[in-house]
Amino acid sequence: MSESLQTPTSTVKRGPKRAQYDAETAYNIIDSTLLCHIGQQVNGQVFVTPTCHWREGDYLYWHAHSKARNTHGAVKEAQKVCINICELDGLVLARSAFHHSVNYRSVTLFGIPETIEDYDEKVRHFELFINKVSPDRWSQLRPVTDQEVLATGLVRIKIDEASVKLRAEGVIDDEADMDWPVWAGVMPLAKQWQPLQQDSAQNKDYLAPQAPKAI
Amino acid sequence: MSESLQTPTSTVKRGPKRAQYDAETAYNIIDSTLLCHIGQQVNGQVFVTPTCHWREGDYLYWHAHSKARNTHGAVKEAQKVCINICELDGLVLARSAFHHSVNYRSVTLFGIPETIEDYDEKVRHFELFINKVSPDRWSQLRPVTDQEVLATGLVRIKIDEASVKLRAEGVIDDEADMDWPVWAGVMPLAKQWQPLQQDSAQNKDYLAPQAPKAI
Repeated sequence: MSESLQTPTSTVKRGPKRAQYDAETAYNIIDSTLLCHIGQQVNGQVFVTPTCHWREGDYLYWHAHSKARNTHGAVKEAQKVCINICELDGLVLARSAFHHSVNYRSVTLFGIPETIEDYDEKVRHFELFINKVSPDRWSQLRPVTDQEVLATGLVRIKIDEASVKLRAEGVIDDEADMDWPVWAGVMPLAKQWQPLQQDSAQNKDYLAPQAPKAI
Repeated sequence: MSESLQTPTSTVKRGPKRAQYDAETAYNIIDSTLLCHIGQQVNGQVFVTPTCHWREGDYLYWHAHSKARNTHGAVKEAQKVCINICELDGLVLARSAFHHSVNYRSVTLFGIPETIEDYDEKVRHFELFINKVSPDRWSQLRPVTDQEVLATGLVRIKIDEASVKLRAEGVIDDEADMDWPVWAGVMPLAKQWQPLQQDSAQNKDYLAPQAPKAI
């Protein structure tokens, strides 16, 4: 078992049997996904913003326009945001409506966003992000300009307060329902990369980009 | 163009060119997806909770344990929550890091949750939900019990304050980069239902469940 991410805020109240708090499991979900949902308050109203994330060590990173709501500049006070990453892995079709469920992997993180202003550190992280999206791509690209680096905000939270919820199993029905005459089981869901669509402005065969490990 | 869902709160500040506010487009995204992310405050802390949703008319519905954080009972004051639904449709791989993007469909809704306590209305909605998850399934199931209906909370918000953001196009690079020697284009992403996994406790061939239109 790796480091525990359990705190009073990250403790799961509903369905605690499906909850866990070890960092390794959280990292696995973070690294195998592309999209997270950031929840924060602006003038007392909650906003939930989807964006792409990446991880280095025990920090979760994202980027945004340097004037965007979810970079630190736009949030005046130090506010603990909540970030959820959830992948739906299948439908669990039970013999009763009540026992229907879904298989999923979900991690919920809490932390105070920290903006990174250092130019070289920003560039180093944009490289990590691009290479998460498509391995080895960064070195093939037209190099970034100063203006692009300045226009792009880099934000992170420490991954030290989080919970994981997982369901990855078959149907669980009441004993009394086991002979009910209806199909029961799991309808799994998967994501798949589709055939590449090259820009029609290109008429050369460049090396095809690699698909990411995350999906 | 159907009814507009634009309000000061739902007006998109970043990337307004990709924003739209017509109800029809929002409904299409809501109906073609299963998972939403609900953002709300509890004692000043934001929580983002993933759950499944469905729609009837101009209301978005979800369910939860009647004691859960995201049913109205647990939130004492009338609070405007924020719900986002976002589907990632592909990676947009440009010639420069800066112009990398994603194709996606996202709808962000705001509203004050309303709990529905009427027994028959709850049952009618659980039927809509089950049949969204697998068409025609409700009538085949072991009927719900009073206890199950009481234990399950039903919540809705009116869909009258929302925004849609969409990107569904190819790569957009700087004119000066068009001859940069790197593959550029779109790597599309799709979700697909996988072969059914019948509960091993069943040794009969029941009618296979239908996959939902939403995914």
